[in-house]
Amino acid sequence: MSAEAVEAAIAELKFGANDLMPAMVQDDESGDVLMLAWMDAEAVRRTLTTGRVTYWSRSRGEYWRKGDTSGHRQYVRSVAADCDGDTLLVRVVQIGAACHTGTRTCFDGRELPAVVGTPEIG
Amino acid sequence: MSAEAVEAAIAELKFGANDLMPAMVQDDESGDVLMLAWMDAEAVRRTLTTGRVTYWSRSRGEYWRKGDTSGHRQYVRSVAADCDGDTLLVRVVQIGAACHTGTRTCFDGRELPAVVGTPEIG
Repeated sequence: MSAEAVEAAIAELKFGANDLMPAMVQDDESGDVLMLAWMDAEAVRRTLTTGRVTYWSRSRGEYWRKGDTSGHRQYVRSVAADCDGDTLLVRVVQIGAACHTGTRTCFDGRELPAVVGTPEIG
Repeated sequence: MSAEAVEAAIAELKFGANDLMPAMVQDDESGDVLMLAWMDAEAVRRTLTTGRVTYWSRSRGEYWRKGDTSGHRQYVRSVAADCDGDTLLVRVVQIGAACHTGTRTCFDGRELPAVVGTPEIG
């Protein structure tokens, strides 16, 4: 993987408000969706080139390499952009809990009331 | 599921810029992450109460019930908020291709060059 290839890939991404784009994070082993966080171009660059996932923390206004404080590191397995180039899907090996509340994913136990749909009833 | 429970759940969500929040969509059967799109409170309400997934289309400026044009409907299996209440995870039964380009997911064949990380090498 060359630095040129990384920069070419980043140049094709379409960042949104505040030069950020959402990154969905999926456990590469279980397939569980762990969390969503935000990346700017530099966070994408660090994620693509170091093997560890780095975000931009909107609340703290700084780069945030996942696990540096908590120990709950995320190791990159793959990164893909979506069809519009404005969303990322990062597959990771997750050490410990992905959520700062201590749950494995940020969605555990936070289900909303929803009608279940089925193809049969349209 | 009561209308009151739905409204109470929506009232706890934290919508972001333009009163929208990202909704990650996962295939309930395969676990594949299919796409990310955006919802406002009314799109969430329709999604929770009808069994079909509805988004807000930022490009068209209108509600978009997935599949009404393409036939590629999404039937709701579950909806969860994340720990901050500002992101949704919707698990669906996906009919046909989730992506408007015709691929099953919006990420198929769109991998970026990335260094693979492993816990062993830190």
